[in-house]
Amino acid sequence: MDYITSVKNEKIKEIKKLSTVKGRRHQHLYLIEGEHLVNEALKSQVNIKELLVTENFINHDEHHIIKQLYNQTTQISDNVAQHLSALVTPPGIFAVIAQPTTPTTINYQGKWLVLDQVQDPGNVGTMIRTADAAGYQGVVLSTDSADIYAPKVQRAMQGSQFHLQLLRADLEQVIPAFQKQKLPVYGTLVDDQALNYRQLTAPEEFALIMGNEAHGMQAELIPLVDKNLYIPLVGQAESLNVAIAAGILMFSL
Amino acid sequence: MDYITSVKNEKIKEIKKLSTVKGRRHQHLYLIEGEHLVNEALKSQVNIKELLVTENFINHDEHHIIKQLYNQTTQISDNVAQHLSALVTPPGIFAVIAQPTTPTTINYQGKWLVLDQVQDPGNVGTMIRTADAAGYQGVVLSTDSADIYAPKVQRAMQGSQFHLQLLRADLEQVIPAFQKQKLPVYGTLVDDQALNYRQLTAPEEFALIMGNEAHGMQAELIPLVDKNLYIPLVGQAESLNVAIAAGILMFSL
Repeated sequence: MDYITSVKNEKIKEIKKLSTVKGRRHQHLYLIEGEHLVNEALKSQVNIKELLVTENFINHDEHHIIKQLYNQTTQISDNVAQHLSALVTPPGIFAVIAQPTTPTTINYQGKWLVLDQVQDPGNVGTMIRTADAAGYQGVVLSTDSADIYAPKVQRAMQGSQFHLQLLRADLEQVIPAFQKQKLPVYGTLVDDQALNYRQLTAPEEFALIMGNEAHGMQAELIPLVDKNLYIPLVGQAESLNVAIAAGILMFSL
Repeated sequence: MDYITSVKNEKIKEIKKLSTVKGRRHQHLYLIEGEHLVNEALKSQVNIKELLVTENFINHDEHHIIKQLYNQTTQISDNVAQHLSALVTPPGIFAVIAQPTTPTTINYQGKWLVLDQVQDPGNVGTMIRTADAAGYQGVVLSTDSADIYAPKVQRAMQGSQFHLQLLRADLEQVIPAFQKQKLPVYGTLVDDQALNYRQLTAPEEFALIMGNEAHGMQAELIPLVDKNLYIPLVGQAESLNVAIAAGILMFSL
């Protein structure tokens, strides 16, 4: 097993580039960190290109991750781990994973979450995790939503990317495609002229759109959907965090 | 109006200390930033000690905030704004506010959210904002939950601290106090032996406890509560983010 102790090592320099959108696009790879995520990746049989572990992790590898990926494993020193990590306290394990090729045919079944221009990586990751917990089939992200391979999205998803279908698409094309397959599409608005979500009897299969944190759903999408929903608020807060609103709707509909 | 252009100015140095727990405790003050939050503070008639504004804000003060606080207002340069801000793009307005004295008598009415050792500032702030939107009376934080005056909590709360009662207390004393006032207390567990929240017919007034992100509610509290609730998950995610779980429960019960 190789042992890298310098942040100037060529392999480490390439991996470090995966912390940027440009680096991830160029290499078609992404980086995950922490035992839980790497374990989830292993279980899902994605293509793990590199495994990087510290001495401390080697001595505490309870799930025998290294044994399963021995040929891809490199030992790194603590300072290299610190250099690669997005966390203040870096974990002792990192994996470089091939970005899956986007499926060309969508499986239009079950429930789908659709994210329209959601910018905050924590919100995007948390909504994907919640969609997973609610048994959703997948999540469609508009082309201008946050990059799912960003470290903060990865951290908030907690491995849910390995459980459901994630894809990026032009929503003006996706909405009619869902409707053609008999899945109604529900928009969401902060507007009490829309339909109170408690009044909707949702079918087994549908798509639910959540909009941008500050501006909500794009105006162009409003006439395309089957119904627009809102969550009535009784206190003085003007709005809900978008991930909270998504959680309430996904567990209620 | 004074104009400060140096981050070494004594007043700015004191205000900068409010970004730390120690500084906030010592001065009994906290800092908020952004027009929305300052406006909410003004409406709620809290004690605003200082208002700091940039030239750009002075030229675009649509809500006439400066006029209302003229005697407390100081102009600051953009580099001072950058120095004080927790954001990459600093807003042009900051306010220093007196921390309210904790009320000695709690108003045991309505619905209460109780946070047990919730550590992440974003989660604490988001849950307080959601409690506000759900019409809750207040939020009790355990003594070891995140500091509500931390910049990240302030940002996630979006001004909800001005709408509901917030207090910090020992939960082993608060739980029986709620029960004595005939408010049942519901715990939350990630355990399908607990009661499915959909099966609970909640009364008008109660307290709901959310636990730590990684470890859930403290074991010591479990026998003290009236019922322990859980949210059944149907996908492969092992758990929900605590703020999402809180949102689902507060809007369902």
